[in-house]
Amino acid sequence: TARQDFAANERIYAPYSVFKGKAALSVQPVPPTFTKLDSGNVKVERRGIMMLTFMPAMGERKYDYEKRQHFALSATEVGSLISLGPKDSSEFFHDPSMLSSNAGQVRKSLSIKPQADGGGYFMSLTVVNNILRTNDRFNVPITAGEFAVLKTACSFALPHIMGWDRLTAKLPKEKVG
Amino acid sequence: TARQDFAANERIYAPYSVFKGKAALSVQPVPPTFTKLDSGNVKVERRGIMMLTFMPAMGERKYDYEKRQHFALSATEVGSLISLGPKDSSEFFHDPSMLSSNAGQVRKSLSIKPQADGGGYFMSLTVVNNILRTNDRFNVPITAGEFAVLKTACSFALPHIMGWDRLTAKLPKEKVG
Amino acid sequence: TARQDFAANERIYAPYSVFKGKAALSVQPVPPTFTKLDSGNVKVERRGIMMLTFMPAMGERKYDYEKRQHFALSATEVGSLISLGPKDSSEFFHDPSMLSSNAGQVRKSLSIKPQADGGGYFMSLTVVNNILRTNDRFNVPITAGEFAVLKTACSFALPHIMGWDRLTAKLPKEKVG
Amino acid sequence: TARQDFAANERIYAPYSVFKGKAALSVQPVPPTFTKLDSGNVKVERRGIMMLTFMPAMGERKYDYEKRQHFALSATEVGSLISLGPKDSSEFFHDPSMLSSNAGQVRKSLSIKPQADGGGYFMSLTVVNNILRTNDRFNVPITAGEFAVLKTACSFALPHIMGWDRLTAKLPKEKVG
Repeated sequence: TARQDFAANERIYAPYSVFKGKAALSVQPVPPTFTKLDSGNVKVERRGIMMLTFMPAMGERKYDYEKRQHFALSATEVGSLISLGPKDSSEFFHDPSMLSSNAGQVRKSLSIKPQADGGGYFMSLTVVNNILRTNDRFNVPITAGEFAVLKTACSFALPHIMGWDRLTAKLPKEKVG
Repeated sequence: TARQDFAANERIYAPYSVFKGKAALSVQPVPPTFTKLDSGNVKVERRGIMMLTFMPAMGERKYDYEKRQHFALSATEVGSLISLGPKDSSEFFHDPSMLSSNAGQVRKSLSIKPQADGGGYFMSLTVVNNILRTNDRFNVPITAGEFAVLKTACSFALPHIMGWDRLTAKLPKEKVG
Repeated sequence: TARQDFAANERIYAPYSVFKGKAALSVQPVPPTFTKLDSGNVKVERRGIMMLTFMPAMGERKYDYEKRQHFALSATEVGSLISLGPKDSSEFFHDPSMLSSNAGQVRKSLSIKPQADGGGYFMSLTVVNNILRTNDRFNVPITAGEFAVLKTACSFALPHIMGWDRLTAKLPKEKVG
Repeated sequence: TARQDFAANERIYAPYSVFKGKAALSVQPVPPTFTKLDSGNVKVERRGIMMLTFMPAMGERKYDYEKRQHFALSATEVGSLISLGPKDSSEFFHDPSMLSSNAGQVRKSLSIKPQADGGGYFMSLTVVNNILRTNDRFNVPITAGEFAVLKTACSFALPHIMGWDRLTAKLPKEKVG
C-alpha cells in the first residue's frame, strides 16, 4: 500500500517557466480537491486553477522569489487564453479580497497582448495594493513557441483542473476468487 | 483492495456550470457502461453521453433545481458541437419517449447560435411536454472563453464517453514470482 | 491480482459506428503489442492500427456482417485522415497479400471525398479480389458531426496505436516498508 | 508487487520512424525524471525532451545506425514545431558542449522547411564537429500525413515531457478497513 499513500500525499512541482530580461513567469496547474458525500459519492470541493507566478529580475539570470506575485486563472479564463487568436488581446481582473471587508484594496490585472511583429505575446501583471501602498508591474515577452507550449499544456490541463479526468469509464468488476 | 471498490462504486460530480441572469447551464460527461461477454471480452452496454442541465433563475444568483431540464448529447452531437465555427449554428431535436407509446408527446430542442458581436453563443433549450401541458424555455448566453472550455473539455471527454479510453496498449505481463 | 489478469487478457469492443442506407462503417483502434527484450526493456512488436469495418445493408437497419470488409489504417494514414481540410480528398491503397506469392491478387482502396454541400464526406471502400473473383464496393456518407467525432477520436487514439501512451513520466519509487 | 517494479525499471521503445531514400528519422519522447525533496514533495529533476534520431541510408531500405545523430527538442522547441503553419519554416541551433570547455566545437542545426508543392516538409539536420573534423548532413522529406502524426503525437507528448501528466486530481482517500 506504499504507492497508495505516496500518490495521496505528495505535491509535485513541474512548472513551465520562461526567464526573460526583466521578469520570469512560471505556470503550473493546481488540481481540484474532492470531498466525499454521505451518499458515498464524490464531488469537487475546491475547483482547480492554473497558477501563474511572476518574479522580477534581480541581476543576470537571477530572479527575486520574495517579490513574486500570483495570478490564479479559473477554468473559464484558461478557456479564454487557449482560444486567443494571433492578433487577439485579453485582460483579466482579480480582487483577492473580494467579498471580504478588504474588497477593492488589492487589484490584480493580467493582460495578454500580441507582439507587433506577430507570433508572440506580452504577458503583464499589475498588482496595486492599497494596504501595503505597493504597485508592482511585471512584463514578460512570450515567443510563439512558448505560447504554443502554454496553449497545448493548458488545453491538456483544463479537464484536469475541472476534475473531468476522474470521470473515466469503469469496466465491469472482476470477481476476486 | 479498498481503492478498487472505491473506484468501482462511487459517482463523481464535477460539472462545468455557467450561471447567468435568467438560467444556468451545467455540463458533465456520463461514461458508458460495459458488460462482460461469455468469451471473457468486454463490450459497451450503454453508450456514454454529455449531459446538459438547464435551471431557471429564481432570484439573484439562485436557480430552481426542481425545474431543471436535461438534454443528453450523443457522441455525434458532441462532434457537431466541437466543430462549430465562430459563425455556425446548430440545432438538435430529441424525443425522450421515442419508440414508446408516448412518442411525440415530449419534444426537446437544443439550439446553439452565435452572438451578433462575435465570440460567444446563445445556448437555448425548449421542452414542449404535451402530457403535462408545459412549455419550458431556457436561454443561456455563453462567452467565448466559456465556449472554449466546453469545446476543449468536450473534446477531452469524447473518447471517454465512447469508451475508447479503455483501449490502452497493454504491456507484456510480468511474471509474478 | 484479479484486476491485473483482467486488464491483461480481455479485449474491449467499443466501436464508433455509423449506419446509413446502403452500408455501415465501424471504427475501432487496435493497440500495438509489446515484446520484452533480454535487456529487460520493452519494445513495440506489432504496431497498432485504426480498424475500419464496412458492412452492406441487407434490409432496413440491418447489415450483413458476413460480407464485411476491413481496412486497417496505419499511424501515418490516420495522420492524413485527421489533417484533411473541409475540401480535401484522400485515397489509400492496400494489398493485404503484399510480399507474399499472392501479391496483387487483392486490391483494396479507401477513398475519402468531401460532399458537394460542404461539411460532410463520402467514405468508400473498394475491394477487388482476383482469387475469389469478387468486387465489393461500400459507400458511406459521413456528416460533419460524425467526421468531427472521427477526427477527435482518431487524434486521441493516435498516440495509443503508436504506443506512446506507455511513455509516461515515472515518479521516484517509494520505499516499501 | 511485480507490476510496480516493472513499471519503475523498464524502458519502452516505441519510436515513430520514417524511412526515406537518403536517410531515416525516428522520433521518441523521453520523459522527465523526478526527485524527492526532504519535504516529501517531488520535483522535476531533468526535463523531458523529444529525441530526434537521424540515420543515413546505406543501401536499399538499410540505414547505418552507427552513423546516427541525435537532436533533442526542448518543450519550447516542441511548441514551435506543433505551431508551424503550412508555409512556415523553423530552425533550431544546439551546442551539446555549451557551458563546457568544448563550447562551440560541435554545432547542430535542425531546419524544418515547407515543400514547394505544399503539404509536406523537409527536415534537415546538420552536425559540424570541429574536434572530429566531421560534417554530417541528413535530409528527410516528410509527407503531410507524417507531419500530422508528428504534430498530434508531439502535442500529446508535450505535457508528458513537462511532467504535467503527474499533476492529476486526487480523490479523497478511502479508509482501508
